[in-house]
Amino acid sequence: MSKTDVINQDLAKERSKCEFNIEELTNYLDGSAQATENRRKLENKVLSTEGLLDKIPEDFLSHKEKYENAVRKAVLFYRALNNAQDPNMSDQEKANATYRSLLPSAVFKDQSPFTLHVAMFIPTILGQANEEQKKYWLARASKMDLIGTYAQTELGHGTFIRGLETTATYDPKTEEFVLHSPTLSSYKWWPGSLAHTANYCVVMAHLYSQGKSCGIQPFIVQLRDEETHMPLPGIKLGEIGAKLGFNTVNNGFLGFENHRIARDRMLMKNAQISKDGTFTKSVNSKLTYGTMVYVRVAIVNGMANQLARAATIAVRYSAVRRQSELKPGAGEPQIMDYVTQQHKLYIAIASSHAFSLIAKWLTRKYYSVTADLEKGNTGELPELHATACCLKAVSTLDTTGLIERCRLSCGGHGYMLSSNLPQIYGLATAAFTYEGEFTVLMLQTARSLVKAWEQASAGKPLSPTMSYLTQKGQSSKWSNSIDGIIDGFQRVAQGKLESAIASIKKYSKQGLAPEDAWNMSSVRLVAASEAHARVVILSTYKSELERTTTSLSEPLRRVLGYLLHLYAFYWTLEKVGDLLLYTSISEGDIQQLEDVYEDLLGKVRPNAVGLVDAFDFRDQILNSTLGAYDGRVYERLMEEALKSPLNAEPVNQSFHKYLKPFMQGKL
Amino acid sequence: MSKTDVINQDLAKERSKCEFNIEELTNYLDGSAQATENRRKLENKVLSTEGLLDKIPEDFLSHKEKYENAVRKAVLFYRALNNAQDPNMSDQEKANATYRSLLPSAVFKDQSPFTLHVAMFIPTILGQANEEQKKYWLARASKMDLIGTYAQTELGHGTFIRGLETTATYDPKTEEFVLHSPTLSSYKWWPGSLAHTANYCVVMAHLYSQGKSCGIQPFIVQLRDEETHMPLPGIKLGEIGAKLGFNTVNNGFLGFENHRIARDRMLMKNAQISKDGTFTKSVNSKLTYGTMVYVRVAIVNGMANQLARAATIAVRYSAVRRQSELKPGAGEPQIMDYVTQQHKLYIAIASSHAFSLIAKWLTRKYYSVTADLEKGNTGELPELHATACCLKAVSTLDTTGLIERCRLSCGGHGYMLSSNLPQIYGLATAAFTYEGEFTVLMLQTARSLVKAWEQASAGKPLSPTMSYLTQKGQSSKWSNSIDGIIDGFQRVAQGKLESAIASIKKYSKQGLAPEDAWNMSSVRLVAASEAHARVVILSTYKSELERTTTSLSEPLRRVLGYLLHLYAFYWTLEKVGDLLLYTSISEGDIQQLEDVYEDLLGKVRPNAVGLVDAFDFRDQILNSTLGAYDGRVYERLMEEALKSPLNAEPVNQSFHKYLKPFMQGKL
Repeated sequence: MSKTDVINQDLAKERSKCEFNIEELTNYLDGSAQATENRRKLENKVLSTEGLLDKIPEDFLSHKEKYENAVRKAVLFYRALNNAQDPNMSDQEKANATYRSLLPSAVFKDQSPFTLHVAMFIPTILGQANEEQKKYWLARASKMDLIGTYAQTELGHGTFIRGLETTATYDPKTEEFVLHSPTLSSYKWWPGSLAHTANYCVVMAHLYSQGKSCGIQPFIVQLRDEETHMPLPGIKLGEIGAKLGFNTVNNGFLGFENHRIARDRMLMKNAQISKDGTFTKSVNSKLTYGTMVYVRVAIVNGMANQLARAATIAVRYSAVRRQSELKPGAGEPQIMDYVTQQHKLYIAIASSHAFSLIAKWLTRKYYSVTADLEKGNTGELPELHATACCLKAVSTLDTTGLIERCRLSCGGHGYMLSSNLPQIYGLATAAFTYEGEFTVLMLQTARSLVKAWEQASAGKPLSPTMSYLTQKGQSSKWSNSIDGIIDGFQRVAQGKLESAIASIKKYSKQGLAPEDAWNMSSVRLVAASEAHARVVILSTYKSELERTTTSLSEPLRRVLGYLLHLYAFYWTLEKVGDLLLYTSISEGDIQQLEDVYEDLLGKVRPNAVGLVDAFDFRDQILNSTLGAYDGRVYERLMEEALKSPLNAEPVNQSFHKYLKPFMQGKL
Repeated sequence: MSKTDVINQDLAKERSKCEFNIEELTNYLDGSAQATENRRKLENKVLSTEGLLDKIPEDFLSHKEKYENAVRKAVLFYRALNNAQDPNMSDQEKANATYRSLLPSAVFKDQSPFTLHVAMFIPTILGQANEEQKKYWLARASKMDLIGTYAQTELGHGTFIRGLETTATYDPKTEEFVLHSPTLSSYKWWPGSLAHTANYCVVMAHLYSQGKSCGIQPFIVQLRDEETHMPLPGIKLGEIGAKLGFNTVNNGFLGFENHRIARDRMLMKNAQISKDGTFTKSVNSKLTYGTMVYVRVAIVNGMANQLARAATIAVRYSAVRRQSELKPGAGEPQIMDYVTQQHKLYIAIASSHAFSLIAKWLTRKYYSVTADLEKGNTGELPELHATACCLKAVSTLDTTGLIERCRLSCGGHGYMLSSNLPQIYGLATAAFTYEGEFTVLMLQTARSLVKAWEQASAGKPLSPTMSYLTQKGQSSKWSNSIDGIIDGFQRVAQGKLESAIASIKKYSKQGLAPEDAWNMSSVRLVAASEAHARVVILSTYKSELERTTTSLSEPLRRVLGYLLHLYAFYWTLEKVGDLLLYTSISEGDIQQLEDVYEDLLGKVRPNAVGLVDAFDFRDQILNSTLGAYDGRVYERLMEEALKSPLNAEPVNQSFHKYLKPFMQGKL
């Protein structure tokens, strides 16, 4: 549907009221006008592929049909994407583009069954294979004459990698590893593609050689015969069942019964095993951290995108939907005229901007630390790790909450799968758990904060994102400015960290072991970590917005400024208790903030539709009856409903089989 | 599986550590030992019905198959339930028992396609039909020789009933009503059973007679031919598509093309129309409020039940799951030993107890107000209405948040549909919207609060639940006791209401119309409503617990006391900002509360599994791989996965069709 077709009048009016140039904002979000053009070209090419978009919505299919349909589309999608992409891009660049773009959302309600091949199998080979291995496996993997995946998590172990139970025992007589699953809980569980799609897999297993443990190591294992696709002897494969989301990703389980693989199937860039079984451990165990951090940064960016998608749907619907009366006889207003609705939605737009800027900032940080690592300098890795942990955690916390808020703001229709809001939530909430569970990550950051506090007490300097912990800050006079608020949030983080450390000391004094004192204080430690994340998010949002918008037009800068202020005031009012405890904020300051916040909602109001238009998701990527560009909400709800196979017949067979005899008293 | 079969050792140990008698608590929750026995007998009888429980989990079926399977089971379930129920119960009592019990959860992942017949069609006839109509329709409905539903919501209108567009125009020449859907947005949308199940329906439509509007009235409409089940001429029916939950309920749409029905099809207990078209309106329009309030009270009870179900699953899993290390070399602890996990879970148990007691209290209030109504005394109806509004809203807010918290506390496995946690969330979150959307209800309560405030200013007495608004309370000295906390929450509600009213006045002074000033202040009004709800919940939880536990054994009373205190301290710490603003709570008080809260988590710890066992959900009702009584978590996860139709074949057909040619470069 082109943008010039019939548009809902309310939406058209909203667009005419917008105070900035929408295309200018799109270009800013993409990075440049050229980047916008490239993205649109890629989308045009891929989405025009015959047979790629579903005619019957996936939600009506059975679990098995969903998978079969997804394989059909994955093949088409992969070819189309490959043909459309710049052939000069490296495999890694291509992989990144696929991983970060929301383009697959137009094709799969979640992700392709090939996702793990691109997102994990290839990167693991790049990071952990030696040169010889890389040459062979990358050649095959990049042209996809095999499909790989990555198996780490087990039925009984996710977070605690050292606890993985799968064993790889080296047998020097045959120069083979014997892979084995000693218990039910040692079965690999969760890897995408694993069930019926992949025929190769990187398996993380506990290596034993010469009777000794050699830690968790990566092995490439052939799972299925290349001709028949039958699982190889000693390999048990299957799928793990239906889930809240990702049902086309083909998550599987994998068990080994003394399955043998050759010695060269261990990925040996970092650790090695010689023919006789002598183990040489990795020079620097921190080197494997890198990929983990990278994936977490990508998740922050993914959150920004998914949140933008949900906000687009909810804001457009709120401009089209009219309900109730504000004033008797004045007709039903657009529901976006209700201030409570503005309060629900605009923070979602602002948060998406915040996370998008933060992801870009964190990516730059990641590349700079990686460059240092190559030079053997690991000094900044701990700070990067601590920052990525809490930002991944808090961005998923906020995003999942805000996506639900967007969904619920659409009333009953947000409950329809045709709105796509339930599925977007399903995707986002998975990120709360995968690649580092929320609480686990928050406690990792807390450990860094406690360490930093101790260093500071010992007079040592702190890393940039934590240096505020030793600063004094304003204590006498609160200011409702952005800088005043950032300063206030720094005092909160200081105060919460101090309180958590005091709690650890208290429990230690009572005779608890250090680990128990830590555990008893862990609710407070998580709170300190969150407070720290709020400081990083707020101060980075401000500094990155300032840094990146100097060449933008004045109207656009003004509106982006509204969002930053709205974000800061929203969080100040959310965390007012903490601020009252640790800063000099007064009741009068708070009342003034409430007034200014309400005023800001009114200033964003005429720009709301323009702001979500600028995210520039085309209708196929939104995949939503409520959020399409033209605002034909009710027509689309009916059109989608009529696609239900149940609506193909006026009378369902169950009437004759069950209902009629039942009503006639014969059943 | 009987309780004497093999039990996970960790769970068995937990049960042996429990400090109270589990059966005693179950009896308390059921009302009496006799009530427990009756419930168990009913469950035994119904659940032993051949063919009632699925062999292949519903999650693997297509949308259409789910419906067909649900109709098959609905017929079996209805007959089994009818046979098992006491024949001396009235239809209303039977309907209530079916509506409130979680028994259907063992059979349907959500609800039966007959639910609306029992929950809405019959009650509407009881409440709105005259004696003659009642006699005819109730006779047919109670033996189910017809299946009815209730159609009010339209594609374009939910909350705003006056805005409904479906018209019923009386034609005195033929003594008929002409039902018509003038627009797409006037199509009825959402009613359960409507799509392919029901053949009769109560339709709410805008009545016109003698050229005048006569308001929204109820009509019984035959939808389908009783023999062929074909939609009658002038009636368009279908289903609305897939949803986040309730996919076996068969939600439908309904449109009319000048469809004629006889005059006696208008339900005429309250308003009437004579043969010549003279309209007589209802004597008291408030009489129809009753059912609405009743349904909201039932929802609070439903929330208590669903939350108990989620807590049972998460607590048992947390006793079985072992992960990471607290102390090096000490082995992996049960994840429930992490204080952060206790913090996530125990508030869910306590909240379920709170909502259960509040629902019972509100039910008694409802019956007492209804008895008054029969005597023509409507004085207490507004207070009941205001209380039910905010309690329904806040109980769904808390419950949905806590169910997600339980789900996320189970890590990745909580994302599996076989855990049943995603489906329980899907059910609960629907209640956030249906029967009164959250924000709409909160603003209705806010209107009552503002009115009460004005009455108090004029020296008039306030209704019991609001009388605290005029009381002075402690202002000088905060106390960390339950009474002190309740008093503090009262001050918060007072303060927030005062601030919202001040905001309305400020905007009015600036020249805004009263409605606009209200709208501008609506975020603060919702906050005042929530603060009021917190007062009602906390004070009622305390008083009802005290009132109902006098004859319990000391150990049980002690543990129930832990839960009350945990609940009070949890909310004090959550709302500490409000308390700092409006009470004299000090930093020292807060630190003390944090200590006591952590101490209470430790006291609940040995009783946690006992507390959820006492909810006494049998495995079929929990329907969860993670939550079963025996704790065979990993075995069940694998058993359920193996039921996936995808696992019936080692190689899926999509390999030959797509994957192989693709990998060989031929696609």
